[in-house]
Amino acid sequence: MRPKIAVIQKIIVGSLLWFGVTMGPMAIASDVLPHWNESPSKAQIISFVTRVTDPASASFVPVSDRIAVFDNDGTLWSEQPLYVQLAFLIDRIKAQAPDHPEWQTTQPFKAALEGDLATLKHGGKESLLSLLAATHAGMTSDAFREMVCAWLATAKHPQTGLPYTAMVYQPMLSLLNYLRANGFRTYIVSGGGVEFMRAWAQDVYGIPPEQVIGTSLASEFVMRDGVPEVIRLPQVSFIDDRAGKPIAIDHHIGKRPVMAFGNSDGDLEMLQWSTAGSGPRFGLIVHHTDAVREVAYDRQSSIGRLDKALDMAQKKGWTVVDMKNDWATVFAPNKYTQPVLKDMFERRICTYRQGYHQSLG
Amino acid sequence: MRPKIAVIQKIIVGSLLWFGVTMGPMAIASDVLPHWNESPSKAQIISFVTRVTDPASASFVPVSDRIAVFDNDGTLWSEQPLYVQLAFLIDRIKAQAPDHPEWQTTQPFKAALEGDLATLKHGGKESLLSLLAATHAGMTSDAFREMVCAWLATAKHPQTGLPYTAMVYQPMLSLLNYLRANGFRTYIVSGGGVEFMRAWAQDVYGIPPEQVIGTSLASEFVMRDGVPEVIRLPQVSFIDDRAGKPIAIDHHIGKRPVMAFGNSDGDLEMLQWSTAGSGPRFGLIVHHTDAVREVAYDRQSSIGRLDKALDMAQKKGWTVVDMKNDWATVFAPNKYTQPVLKDMFERRICTYRQGYHQSLG
Repeated sequence: MRPKIAVIQKIIVGSLLWFGVTMGPMAIASDVLPHWNESPSKAQIISFVTRVTDPASASFVPVSDRIAVFDNDGTLWSEQPLYVQLAFLIDRIKAQAPDHPEWQTTQPFKAALEGDLATLKHGGKESLLSLLAATHAGMTSDAFREMVCAWLATAKHPQTGLPYTAMVYQPMLSLLNYLRANGFRTYIVSGGGVEFMRAWAQDVYGIPPEQVIGTSLASEFVMRDGVPEVIRLPQVSFIDDRAGKPIAIDHHIGKRPVMAFGNSDGDLEMLQWSTAGSGPRFGLIVHHTDAVREVAYDRQSSIGRLDKALDMAQKKGWTVVDMKNDWATVFAPNKYTQPVLKDMFERRICTYRQGYHQSLG
Repeated sequence: MRPKIAVIQKIIVGSLLWFGVTMGPMAIASDVLPHWNESPSKAQIISFVTRVTDPASASFVPVSDRIAVFDNDGTLWSEQPLYVQLAFLIDRIKAQAPDHPEWQTTQPFKAALEGDLATLKHGGKESLLSLLAATHAGMTSDAFREMVCAWLATAKHPQTGLPYTAMVYQPMLSLLNYLRANGFRTYIVSGGGVEFMRAWAQDVYGIPPEQVIGTSLASEFVMRDGVPEVIRLPQVSFIDDRAGKPIAIDHHIGKRPVMAFGNSDGDLEMLQWSTAGSGPRFGLIVHHTDAVREVAYDRQSSIGRLDKALDMAQKKGWTVVDMKNDWATVFAPNKYTQPVLKDMFERRICTYRQGYHQSLG
């Protein structure tokens, strides 16, 4: 399938990458899409963006309509071996367990405490909702984000030992920057909890809270000691997955996106709907083909299963990123992995949601 | 209460305004807030914006947090003698009546056909929802906006005979422009239907679809003749009024606004919650005191009743705009009232939601 030249390019780019890592991120920053190999995927992205931003092109799209939507888990950061929010949820249950001795013998809490993912999965949505109600509700969005930030500052990926904020795909960060530099507004549209993501999406991806769309809890307006607050309820109000994604985009943005990015069947409807609009449209699927640098999985996976969407990509001409061959880097050391800067960035994540950015960096 | 100097100012500003109208809008455009008299309200707005945009001020707010939320009916445009969307709804029922002979004898359709507002009001929410289901559902958001645009191009305000798009408050348009020029993002947060407003909010107020929050219908993702579409269902999914407003802001924007603007008790919770945040906050209520140029109403009105919020404004120090004395102009001829340009602007409203702005003006 792949021509020999790709192998040679890999060696060249691999060498450049080695220099890049050694010399720091600036070494390859002059490239249009750093961390991408010179692959058809990269060429398709650049060709599309060049066309829609050229006022002389018949495919020109004005800035006001340059909307790009991204799934999060498995598209912007790793979802293996488990969704990061599930790791958070389990750790929250563990942290609260001393106040709930009954959890030692009650499901699904017992399974969460034992890290028994199989039982949690078997319990289905009901299970997850009980855990969500116990850990995510009864507080303001700000207080919840505070909890998420505090957790992210210390939690480690179970296999790499890196902070989850370092488990982001470098080529996708480059892509976000490239699109924004070309007048696109970048949105997250994820099955994950909207407030879980808003806690760090600005700092990690440069995506502000109002451009994060996700699964959400109902909430209520109450006066607490004379202070008006919006409090999260233990009740899911919207599940932003599969057909929920185009519905949420229509509701929240009110425009059909020009570009859509996903990695699983959960993104199928979003990709279908976005690319079915009139005028130029672009769909892309991140295909997890790299067993060495990440995990190779698609049709048979229990997480982020990619089956129908992969077939549809062929049919519709969506770009399919071959992670193994198209990405020069997958993960890279970043600000969250640098001990000297760690405290500074922890503070930046955690002060973010308190209202005003502190000028820390 | 009001010093004599205000009377003199009124005469001077009135004269300037006369010249302004005669000479065209540019004549007073150099003013910071055109169409506002030199009142305490105007001074309070300018003082606040000056403080929060001054990097040397302790009250400085970074651009990313400059969020201003506006109620629509009665705050940005007239809600008298009836909500514009209700006029639209009644006209839609009339337009569809030939296909529904049963409506002649069935409530609430009969009342709508007869323009019998008292009966409609007596029927309450149930009534309105039947009418909404019959006229607002079963189509895409785009198709619905198309209907709204076509209606706006010909519908006239029942008392002034002006297009509804000319029944906007000129001082509030100035305020929107002034805030945006100072780095604020301006949002509508209204009890009105979100797609009804998105049809024209960009063209009339300069507010894009993604910054319009309102009451919404549920919708579903379907394949229609092989084309994926999001279709509106005859079922209200969220009522964006009263306590719903802060809940919707928390959900949609994820930030507590720095400035909030309303005109009725329906805006009370939004104003309370927005102004209760830490750091500098600004609340404003438009008080309809002008029986000559608009309608004087507040505590006893059946539309946009202003009672508790007026008392709360005193207590919390919110700015209360005295429409009669604070506004030099209320309504003014605009692009929608100019026959020569009418066709051009109709096309602009109506092409807007088709995906790409046409460069018409």
